[in-house]
Amino acid sequence: MANRQIVLATKPSDKLSPAHFAMREAPVPTPGAGEVLARTVYLSLDAANRAWMHGRTYTDPVEAGDVMHGLTLARVEASNDPAFKPGDLVEALNGWQDYAVHKGKALAKVQPVKPLSHAMSVLGVTGKTAYFGMLEIGRPEPGETVLVSAAAGAVGSIAGQIARMQSARVVGLAGSDAKCAWLTRECGFDAAINYKSGPLPKLLRQHCPKGVDVYFDNVGGEVFEAALFAMNLHGRIVCCGAVSQYDTATPAAGPRGVPGLIVVKRLKLEGFVVMDFYKKRAEAEKRLAEWVREGRLKVAEDIVDGLENAPQALCGLLAGENLGKRMVRVVPEA
Amino acid sequence: MANRQIVLATKPSDKLSPAHFAMREAPVPTPGAGEVLARTVYLSLDAANRAWMHGRTYTDPVEAGDVMHGLTLARVEASNDPAFKPGDLVEALNGWQDYAVHKGKALAKVQPVKPLSHAMSVLGVTGKTAYFGMLEIGRPEPGETVLVSAAAGAVGSIAGQIARMQSARVVGLAGSDAKCAWLTRECGFDAAINYKSGPLPKLLRQHCPKGVDVYFDNVGGEVFEAALFAMNLHGRIVCCGAVSQYDTATPAAGPRGVPGLIVVKRLKLEGFVVMDFYKKRAEAEKRLAEWVREGRLKVAEDIVDGLENAPQALCGLLAGENLGKRMVRVVPEA
Repeated sequence: MANRQIVLATKPSDKLSPAHFAMREAPVPTPGAGEVLARTVYLSLDAANRAWMHGRTYTDPVEAGDVMHGLTLARVEASNDPAFKPGDLVEALNGWQDYAVHKGKALAKVQPVKPLSHAMSVLGVTGKTAYFGMLEIGRPEPGETVLVSAAAGAVGSIAGQIARMQSARVVGLAGSDAKCAWLTRECGFDAAINYKSGPLPKLLRQHCPKGVDVYFDNVGGEVFEAALFAMNLHGRIVCCGAVSQYDTATPAAGPRGVPGLIVVKRLKLEGFVVMDFYKKRAEAEKRLAEWVREGRLKVAEDIVDGLENAPQALCGLLAGENLGKRMVRVVPEA
Repeated sequence: MANRQIVLATKPSDKLSPAHFAMREAPVPTPGAGEVLARTVYLSLDAANRAWMHGRTYTDPVEAGDVMHGLTLARVEASNDPAFKPGDLVEALNGWQDYAVHKGKALAKVQPVKPLSHAMSVLGVTGKTAYFGMLEIGRPEPGETVLVSAAAGAVGSIAGQIARMQSARVVGLAGSDAKCAWLTRECGFDAAINYKSGPLPKLLRQHCPKGVDVYFDNVGGEVFEAALFAMNLHGRIVCCGAVSQYDTATPAAGPRGVPGLIVVKRLKLEGFVVMDFYKKRAEAEKRLAEWVREGRLKVAEDIVDGLENAPQALCGLLAGENLGKRMVRVVPEA
């Protein structure tokens, strides 16, 4: 039995391509004392994966020769930690490979849900990121205008729907008319803007005639700047990601209006990552699951089969081809 | 009796100079029903004055031909509002002139203090800006590193001393060795950096070896960017002003690292103006006055005599020549 591994063979100097990765096989590792062997079932693909290649972020950087890092939903195959038994589902940083061993304390147990992929999407990191970012930082009030970028993505689609449940007016930004149609027809967004369809400042004036009270930012760059100029007094910007700046050797200049407009409009900007709120993790998962059950939260998943397709699938995600949460199903029968 | 007025004759397209202003005389206005005639005693000079020439900020813009706007400490000369009587001291937006009339509700009574200039500095807008910005937004904890830009200015010098009282380690940025010496010797700053003395990222590493927890920003631009890169996890940036961007036709590009570093470091940035906290105004003035009385707060005032010198004094302030609060004494015997 072999452990397939995808390594980052060379670090990208500009755009990432599948040619930067290489597949190899290694022996399946044996868990030592207190360790657990976990088999990858689903591998999460996230824009942040690309950011990790630039160096230190909120997690370790990915270096050339490393098995590509990645969050996975995994199944315990063997355990020397009494807290875990074979068959348990865990959230684990297995990376892009079939098997990895971990200390038990590096694993978080995951309750089986149907479909199992929900544990990786709406109940997983991206769903909880949307939940905490919108409810703990953005805190929209009824009637306020909430703007969400990368709104058809895994985080944005959930974040916008949660804002809608707070009776805010929700406007999404996405990169195609099809995505925009999905946001308004399926996800209940009040409006959606194809940011490729015209000058953004004008589009924002048109679709946010009362200005923006909460901007949930997943992209940074030009969109961030345009949103900043559209903000209302005492607005809040939830800084969740900067995907426009990840897949390039030449990040854009910073947004104009920083910090001048922050002062004049008395804005609050706050960055976060999901771990910052993990004390409230169980509550978040419970509420998200309820909303899905009640049909109030639409979940889009974009599942790619086969570990070998992960490089292409990540590059596609960085180019914006996914709708909702993109992940790789590594175990076919999952 | 004439009312001397200084008007903004032409709007500056780039750097402001005294040639953009003109002095004229007008009749002293007569207060109508419910109105108050106020005579300018002290005129506040602030970097924000220049920002007002760019257009709408948190207050009305200054247009060519306008009497230059400005905050003043004024004395009531005549009153048709029973709430005010001749001799009362008031905070009023008289602008750059000897006399103005106001509705009583546009005026705030000021208690006479000794020296009277303190009502315009440490107890006035700049002192309270420092107070609210540091204590309500920055909220430094004992042992944290607080960095203050324009630290020898009216706001920065008070903000840094207040942070010091919270047992934070306080580092100031200023534009000359003399200012830096004043900050460490007189104001109790733990360190001060002449930002013209070398590359800022290196100077910050040297003087803030544990990174920066709270950055009190008065300047924006390159200094903001360098501070952003020096921030610690969960740091706070108090956005108080952007003086580096006011006196120019070509504001710098925005700071790199926005919003990427805000996410990765989970920073909080918040803009404010002093009016946002005016519910707590009396408490702030009381505590600031106590600290001055107890010798815990050093107050520097940079007083220029004569209304006719306001244009030159404002241009000098924008070039960084003042130490502490610059103001114009308009009534000689004040």
